[in-house]
Amino acid sequence: MLNLEQIKDLAIQTPMKIVLLVIDGLGGLPKPDTGKTELETARTPNLDSLASKGICGMIDPISPGITPGSAPGHLALFGYDPLKYTVGRGILEVLGIDFDVKSNDVAARGNFCTTDSNGLVADRRAGRISTEKNAELCTILSDIKPDGAELHVIPIREHRFALVFRGDGLSGDVSDSDPQQIGMAPKTMVALSPTAEKTAALANEFADGAKAALAGHHPANMVLLRGFSQHPDFPSMGDIYKLNAAAIAAYPMYRGLAKLVGMKALDTGASVEEEFKTLSQNYADYDFFFVHVKKTDSAGEDGDFDAKVRALEEVDTLLPGLTKLEPDVIVVASDHSTPAILKAHSWHPVPVILYSKWCRPDHVKEFSEPACSSGALGRLPAVEVMPLAMAHALKLAKFGA
Amino acid sequence: MLNLEQIKDLAIQTPMKIVLLVIDGLGGLPKPDTGKTELETARTPNLDSLASKGICGMIDPISPGITPGSAPGHLALFGYDPLKYTVGRGILEVLGIDFDVKSNDVAARGNFCTTDSNGLVADRRAGRISTEKNAELCTILSDIKPDGAELHVIPIREHRFALVFRGDGLSGDVSDSDPQQIGMAPKTMVALSPTAEKTAALANEFADGAKAALAGHHPANMVLLRGFSQHPDFPSMGDIYKLNAAAIAAYPMYRGLAKLVGMKALDTGASVEEEFKTLSQNYADYDFFFVHVKKTDSAGEDGDFDAKVRALEEVDTLLPGLTKLEPDVIVVASDHSTPAILKAHSWHPVPVILYSKWCRPDHVKEFSEPACSSGALGRLPAVEVMPLAMAHALKLAKFGA
Repeated sequence: MLNLEQIKDLAIQTPMKIVLLVIDGLGGLPKPDTGKTELETARTPNLDSLASKGICGMIDPISPGITPGSAPGHLALFGYDPLKYTVGRGILEVLGIDFDVKSNDVAARGNFCTTDSNGLVADRRAGRISTEKNAELCTILSDIKPDGAELHVIPIREHRFALVFRGDGLSGDVSDSDPQQIGMAPKTMVALSPTAEKTAALANEFADGAKAALAGHHPANMVLLRGFSQHPDFPSMGDIYKLNAAAIAAYPMYRGLAKLVGMKALDTGASVEEEFKTLSQNYADYDFFFVHVKKTDSAGEDGDFDAKVRALEEVDTLLPGLTKLEPDVIVVASDHSTPAILKAHSWHPVPVILYSKWCRPDHVKEFSEPACSSGALGRLPAVEVMPLAMAHALKLAKFGA
Repeated sequence: MLNLEQIKDLAIQTPMKIVLLVIDGLGGLPKPDTGKTELETARTPNLDSLASKGICGMIDPISPGITPGSAPGHLALFGYDPLKYTVGRGILEVLGIDFDVKSNDVAARGNFCTTDSNGLVADRRAGRISTEKNAELCTILSDIKPDGAELHVIPIREHRFALVFRGDGLSGDVSDSDPQQIGMAPKTMVALSPTAEKTAALANEFADGAKAALAGHHPANMVLLRGFSQHPDFPSMGDIYKLNAAAIAAYPMYRGLAKLVGMKALDTGASVEEEFKTLSQNYADYDFFFVHVKKTDSAGEDGDFDAKVRALEEVDTLLPGLTKLEPDVIVVASDHSTPAILKAHSWHPVPVILYSKWCRPDHVKEFSEPACSSGALGRLPAVEVMPLAMAHALKLAKFGA
């Protein structure tokens, strides 16, 4: 497998267009009473037709047996080795709320917690306070003025908030204050590298300030911080692939991930219909589109097999809105499986279709896990999908002479 | 995947014989009006029989989506990781003309070009002068006597020539003089490492000499140089595999590549019939044979689907000349696909047959891309073919106790 620098040396700019349709949580597991997965159950004539015309296979988002989070699952599909291109937890948290994170910012995840009279953690989640209470407390904490950086305290949900320091000379190399168990005191945060001294000092100053400000706010009378991290400086898809890439995704997390690799996140409505309309409206202006469908994953996470089937059927029904644009390459894939019976992301490989005029079609006539398992793409790491898509758009020069 | 040093530790010398038949550019794409590839179209009863008796699969010469040049495509088949064992452009150029390159030589590619009255490049190819004119000019340039090395200036074709410096203390770490665009002056070549100072000086001395010597030879009044490189010092197949390996290839490029890994390049006629005769005549003297069929690739490059079909059928008809020798292992593979409809090398994986008394045959009864896609070898990197061939010849000892 070539690294991104080697791919960059081969990439050439052409007018051909690639559409990567990510049906989040696509892969499933059989419903016990039918023996069929969500995708096998769904009526998907348009996806089946695309599978017939294209070449199919199964992708492992990270590596066999490894269940991916959304970030590594997507980065792999964008061709970024997810074991090498990692994103810190704090940064992921703020990407997920569409916070406009700057390259020198340091972000951390925060919990409101309960400490006892000895200052020991009694409840790491402060009894899961309401999101409204959280917002109120974040406003209070925003008044802390640490010396040498701008502070942002942003409520997330229940007891969770995000913390961002903005300023010069910051680093994410700071240890957690969260002891991860009750009966212990919040830890003093320390610099894990010399460049992080300032940030560690800021973090401790914030924690001290929070302790004072929250003293009367039992159960949320203290904060725990973890996952300090900075914006990862990934090479852009424009730089690597010579693509002018756009993302059509409604959820902040996926828009944020797309922006991390230099895509333009287009304004779009949240429904699949609106997303495909956004694709159509912007089709002339970009040569790569990442289109993200969220509903399938949400239904899987909810354990709602039938809702996931309906979500798949909705994508299928609307698919002609994408195919009528006649992209030179269409990839239908996913960042991971979300089997409804597991109610969670899973490690199972994900079916993939690669369609292009230049693909060598296989015998697969149906878009499903078992059918794609015998496709000619075989079983391959998700990170190899982008080089294949690029090749099928005639966007990669020959390697060696 | 084991590296060559690890393979070397396992390799044992045995009397068993391996024949690697490389049908250059073997893989194809379907002809639109029939939906069948060149290989599916060709009548190949002997290859089909071999596929039935052997185990089949699809190989990616370098990595999915990557189109290989001939050098990395062949090196992978010889078991040399093509991303690690790279060959410089200048060296490849001289290998391609059967120049007897020595281990300390530095070779570069040269273009005759046209410069204007200000010394700026007006045509990087000097109007593609004739090969005859090229030869005449190379004779003139051969009179340049740079200080401290022997000079060889060898015509290739049209405006292209090769330059070789022979002497002590040379290095290929020299920048190009070719500015790669018109309107710029040829660049002064510089040493990219301290050991290349002498070579950079020689190269600039040659360029100055060429400018003076060609002054009256418009349009070919200057030279551009690029791809300075030295003979890569690869471990030999004898050293790694304990094989006494011979190459049966008519084209200089493939003979040169075989010599890079220590094979003996046998004298042979150019037709497949003559090549198989060479195999038969030398069969007793070696235990590994690389047999190279060029015609299939040439037909593919020409976009001549039918000629490629005929070339495949010719190989098939003559195949008994190979199989009657009863090699212990026969591998039929290729360095890359060359679909006639693309008129070029492509990234598509290549069908492979591995036959041996010790193989575990699969259900594949036909040698074609779709049939091999469902073979039991699966889809694997080409670099894994040699370890498989060695194993099936009982030439690899157990790894670990």
